Amino acid sequence: MSNIRIPGFRAAGVAAGIKAGGHPDLALVVSDVPCTAAAVFTQNAFAAAPVLYDRALMRQAADRIQAVVINAGNANACTGEPGLRAAADMAAITEEALSLTSGRAFVMSTGVIGVPLPLDPIRQGVPQAAARLREEGWEEAARAIMTTDTFPKLASASLTGALASGVVGGMAKGAGMIHPNMATMLAVLATNVAIAPEPLDAALRYAVDHSFNRISVDGDTSTNDTVLVLANGTLGNDPIRDVNDPRFPPFREALTRVSRELAHMIVRDGEGATKFVTVRVVGAASDMDALRAAKAVANSPLCKTAFFGGDPNWGRVLAAVGYSGAHVDPRRVNLWFAGGKEGQRGPALQVVDGGTPTDYDEAEAVHIFAQPEIDVLIDLGLGEGSTEVWTCDLGYEYVRINAEYRT
Amino acid sequence: MSNIRIPGFRAAGVAAGIKAGGHPDLALVVSDVPCTAAAVFTQNAFAAAPVLYDRALMRQAADRIQAVVINAGNANACTGEPGLRAAADMAAITEEALSLTSGRAFVMSTGVIGVPLPLDPIRQGVPQAAARLREEGWEEAARAIMTTDTFPKLASASLTGALASGVVGGMAKGAGMIHPNMATMLAVLATNVAIAPEPLDAALRYAVDHSFNRISVDGDTSTNDTVLVLANGTLGNDPIRDVNDPRFPPFREALTRVSRELAHMIVRDGEGATKFVTVRVVGAASDMDALRAAKAVANSPLCKTAFFGGDPNWGRVLAAVGYSGAHVDPRRVNLWFAGGKEGQRGPALQVVDGGTPTDYDEAEAVHIFAQPEIDVLIDLGLGEGSTEVWTCDLGYEYVRINAEYRT
Repeated sequence: MSNIRIPGFRAAGVAAGIKAGGHPDLALVVSDVPCTAAAVFTQNAFAAAPVLYDRALMRQAADRIQAVVINAGNANACTGEPGLRAAADMAAITEEALSLTSGRAFVMSTGVIGVPLPLDPIRQGVPQAAARLREEGWEEAARAIMTTDTFPKLASASLTGALASGVVGGMAKGAGMIHPNMATMLAVLATNVAIAPEPLDAALRYAVDHSFNRISVDGDTSTNDTVLVLANGTLGNDPIRDVNDPRFPPFREALTRVSRELAHMIVRDGEGATKFVTVRVVGAASDMDALRAAKAVANSPLCKTAFFGGDPNWGRVLAAVGYSGAHVDPRRVNLWFAGGKEGQRGPALQVVDGGTPTDYDEAEAVHIFAQPEIDVLIDLGLGEGSTEVWTCDLGYEYVRINAEYRT
Repeated sequence: MSNIRIPGFRAAGVAAGIKAGGHPDLALVVSDVPCTAAAVFTQNAFAAAPVLYDRALMRQAADRIQAVVINAGNANACTGEPGLRAAADMAAITEEALSLTSGRAFVMSTGVIGVPLPLDPIRQGVPQAAARLREEGWEEAARAIMTTDTFPKLASASLTGALASGVVGGMAKGAGMIHPNMATMLAVLATNVAIAPEPLDAALRYAVDHSFNRISVDGDTSTNDTVLVLANGTLGNDPIRDVNDPRFPPFREALTRVSRELAHMIVRDGEGATKFVTVRVVGAASDMDALRAAKAVANSPLCKTAFFGGDPNWGRVLAAVGYSGAHVDPRRVNLWFAGGKEGQRGPALQVVDGGTPTDYDEAEAVHIFAQPEIDVLIDLGLGEGSTEVWTCDLGYEYVRINAEYRT
């Protein structure tokens, strides 16, 4: 996991004492100058206090966010009015420590639900983190936002052409409760490119829809999910003002690539995950149908335990496709499996042809399912709809982590 | 598990050799006279061959079904045209062995997907089973349809009043892949009451909707799910001809009670289940919203692992309600837990009041979650919508069974 740098941004992580045991639990990301910003939030009705705070903030200050403060160890969710005040206090503490005017700090929290957020550790930790801010501080910031994550998640991409020297990068945390609808994951993305709030928002929505919203660990969605992007414009380019700007597509592509890298890291680090599984659906009646079918497979506990057990159980895959709600004609459905190490794939093995099993070699299928990465390719044979989602297996470790976890 | 008897019906189970190891795998249920019948089938697009056969059969012969033949060990699903012929052959073999005219036998299969159904064991086993048919043969029939089930599932209820001496009873198999939408479960219900196909169908749909469709083990739905009810009229009552007959409601209620008993047995026998969990939602904006919220909790892997771990993690319950799609105002949500042994409950403990945790005693909550049966009661505080669903926990055994299972 290599570190990242994004011109004009500094970051830091410290152990503020919110988590027990002296683990890092507070991160800051600060820009040298105010940023344009865009954010995507959880759709959970029990949105956490920081989400409520940030939603209001973004309606007023999407053109001047300058800092992000993130704590792990406490989600500040289901905490009522006191929780809302705590989120506002956390922002104010950060703005004061950084000598920013009010309404410049974005707030994120992750951790236990329903426990009041203790402000004393935040009052102590934020100035400590502020004193440590460095351009190379992203890795320690990424470590400070981890909960059940086992490694920090960082990615970046460089732009070329008209935006040469432009950089897009960021960090994320994930692990449990990850689901296509943005479950318990936090991500802070940043760029030195100058771009107005509106096209930045469009780029972020596209990137999230093609990355974080297509991953699944266990199908649960959380109260705190947030993806934020900050653009500080220190590249000095003439700002991208709308989505028709020819520089917009490559910028959006870079943001998507970074988001997808982070999303894949979240899947690889899924609680108890031993396999990285790509479910690709083609030939669907529509893209929406393709997504329905792919998500049904990616979220099926029976498919996920089969991936864990190394059992090339194509029947469970077909059954999931069959109840997904996607339009399916069984006689047109083809299915292939392929396996390999990260980034490498062996030849695809067709196991279903026209809805019934081929005369495939079981040993070959078992060999594919023994690989750390498995591709499941489903052709519904009906139309042009296609998609790709990423998931992991479900094994004993998932049960152990989640049966034991709480305070 | 006590045996059942239903006047005018005989049943039997034998080891036909479809399963390896000489386990019982073929069951017959036969009425002395033709029956009116109703059935509910899987909605999976990959409906198995017997489901396709039975759907066509029911369009023509819902007033004269006389036998059901069921095999375990092979689902006859994803088997193409040969599978359809095998299902028809299985019906014909049964009709011949019982000297019935064509179109009287209903067919069910459960087991491995995608393997051709071997007809030789069925040709041998059906006459053997026919020779063993007895009024007290339900228990051995129920044993012969088990797959990963650990006990046979039987229930019956007696009618009173105008239908005195009427009996409703039946058997089911369930275990893995159980989900509100009728997943991989088979049930054969039978009654000696005389009732026309139309009100019988209405009674069955109501009963299934209030029993089998409200249980969840892992959220997967299968290719073979079928619930059949046969009414042979040997009670000699003037037939119930429509749903406005005053005898209809008590009949429907008895059918529902039997279905619910069987459904609860399926949950108790869920793969690896150690807890029986009732999720009750009241105060929802509509019954549909109540069902959305209850199912989200019942299907959440995070809630289910918390039940397994004995962790009274109300935050996960609220998070599931929050992403269920039900209309939710967090400040109006109340949550209680209660626990006990089968049929007994201790006092309910309120853990959430108006969306935030109460000052409840954690030890008391842990004590509740240590019980074999747990009630989760959610009041959304919005309206009159309510529902109840039943589920089990998700533990190591679920992973073991499903990571290892196939042929």
